[in-house]
Amino acid sequence: MIQENDFQKLYTKLQTKVESVLNISLKGRLPVSLYEPAEYILNSPGKRLRPFLVLISAKAVGGDYSKAYNAAAAVEVLHNFTLVHDDIMDNADKRRGRLTVHKKYDLSTAILVGDILASVAYELLLKDAKTNINRIVSTFNRGVAEVCEGQGLDKEFETASIVTMDQYLEMITKKTAALAEMCCSVGAQIGGGTEAEIKALSKYGKYLGIAFQIQDDLLDIIADEKDFGKKIGGDLVEGKKTFLFIKALEKAKGKYKKDLMRVIKNKGIEPAEVNYYKNIYIELGILNDAVSEIKRYTQLALKGINQLKNEEYRRVFITLANLLIKRSK
Amino acid sequence: MIQENDFQKLYTKLQTKVESVLNISLKGRLPVSLYEPAEYILNSPGKRLRPFLVLISAKAVGGDYSKAYNAAAAVEVLHNFTLVHDDIMDNADKRRGRLTVHKKYDLSTAILVGDILASVAYELLLKDAKTNINRIVSTFNRGVAEVCEGQGLDKEFETASIVTMDQYLEMITKKTAALAEMCCSVGAQIGGGTEAEIKALSKYGKYLGIAFQIQDDLLDIIADEKDFGKKIGGDLVEGKKTFLFIKALEKAKGKYKKDLMRVIKNKGIEPAEVNYYKNIYIELGILNDAVSEIKRYTQLALKGINQLKNEEYRRVFITLANLLIKRSK
Repeated sequence: MIQENDFQKLYTKLQTKVESVLNISLKGRLPVSLYEPAEYILNSPGKRLRPFLVLISAKAVGGDYSKAYNAAAAVEVLHNFTLVHDDIMDNADKRRGRLTVHKKYDLSTAILVGDILASVAYELLLKDAKTNINRIVSTFNRGVAEVCEGQGLDKEFETASIVTMDQYLEMITKKTAALAEMCCSVGAQIGGGTEAEIKALSKYGKYLGIAFQIQDDLLDIIADEKDFGKKIGGDLVEGKKTFLFIKALEKAKGKYKKDLMRVIKNKGIEPAEVNYYKNIYIELGILNDAVSEIKRYTQLALKGINQLKNEEYRRVFITLANLLIKRSK
Repeated sequence: MIQENDFQKLYTKLQTKVESVLNISLKGRLPVSLYEPAEYILNSPGKRLRPFLVLISAKAVGGDYSKAYNAAAAVEVLHNFTLVHDDIMDNADKRRGRLTVHKKYDLSTAILVGDILASVAYELLLKDAKTNINRIVSTFNRGVAEVCEGQGLDKEFETASIVTMDQYLEMITKKTAALAEMCCSVGAQIGGGTEAEIKALSKYGKYLGIAFQIQDDLLDIIADEKDFGKKIGGDLVEGKKTFLFIKALEKAKGKYKKDLMRVIKNKGIEPAEVNYYKNIYIELGILNDAVSEIKRYTQLALKGINQLKNEEYRRVFITLANLLIKRSK
């Protein structure tokens, strides 16, 4: 039985392996003007959660970690490609406490760095795709398309006056959950899982991804600023249509409704108003709603996990889900 | 024996097939905010030369056209991805007589359109990748990486004081020729060609691509403005380090040398000076040098063609090469 302590050991062990693949993945490539900025983003510290999903999915169905390290690195490189391009679109200056690629270098470099990272991601994936190659690459590629479609929806929401909860869920399912779903599916495929195992793990990734994003929306309001590394209420200041905001708009009446509508009209609020809106959320019970939804999606994620061959590994998936619920950043 | 008339018929027939695949490739996809701009660029008229290379390469080694239509469409979609992103980097307002994606829509849309087109390209390729899938996708993916690297070099050259002929050739080999090489290689692989055939056709694509790019540089100076659809001498006005410019700098002495160095220093010339510089090129014999190089690379391209099984199809490759030399736009 894997306990939380063992889990941390496993996470660190696999993370170290993935880092070593990432570290050499761009070494010695030319031109420097392209690959040096690509290394800059790839080497910035991250959770490396997506590679972990690939590896534990491969292992849980009876595969070897060592046959999926490149594929694990591939999903991280792919994720970084989307970050670089998203940061341009969101006009973001910082990422993980460091300047974004387009701020540190320039727009052209950032576009091209994203493009080359996508190509390197496929290259790494192909190294570990030995059987059922077409399906593995198609799954990976479908993940890329969904992330793009999700980002497209997210950009649409910026100017939309009303976003329904269904629309929001569709957006995060594509923008966040599709990649986690893909990670688990690709890992299970490389590990030689059965159809039922691939399906169960894909669902795990998908629902965990949705829970993760709602948790992200919640942390924006309830996190400890020191842990979080960002100002609390940033989503409100930017006028983002998050789970909390959409849920609040559904439930609010009278003055609260007007106050919330004003956020849409003004495309955000003043930082000084964050506390006022946090109180609206509390009054309407939105924070509890978010916690319930996170738990509900986590339960959905874990539903298929008992189908896995490797009993010991069921515990890893459960521990991961519980840790993500408890996370503070 | 395929004559020029038959060649045109073949080209038109295959082009029509490719258009029909392209036309349905994005139909009904959501969100509209992403796929409508993607269709806008994909449906703008183009030569569709790269899909033609895929198809004739597949056929020449004994394959069926019908088994490579998706792959042919894939390389065109991929090419359009690079055009959309390149136009952002080059700050171009027009492409094929129409507004570029980032001008007609906005920067975020153009970045995302490029990204989604790349994904659609892999999706189409995978439909026709039935055997040796890993190699086919790897070849395709290597093509993407080289185009990015070539574009990176091209951007470097904009601010470099000196670019040697070797550096220029490396840049166009990656930026232009690698994609043509990939088209022929992927076509030959899908068609089930032998190792020797795949190699011969890859070289055909590569050298034809180099000849094509030098021809492009030459047309900028000698084309008829009406046919060309652009102002003559645009490369000089922009201060681009083309084949002509680099060759001229190699050969020039005294006043001509100083005049050419001034183009670098001032990052271009006034439109009124184009004729003066055209005369320098003529005096130095640069236009003849370019014609010789185009012929030399075309000969290199054709060198391996007699290894092809399908004798009739050798003629198609020869006719294509000759037509490209004679083209006026």
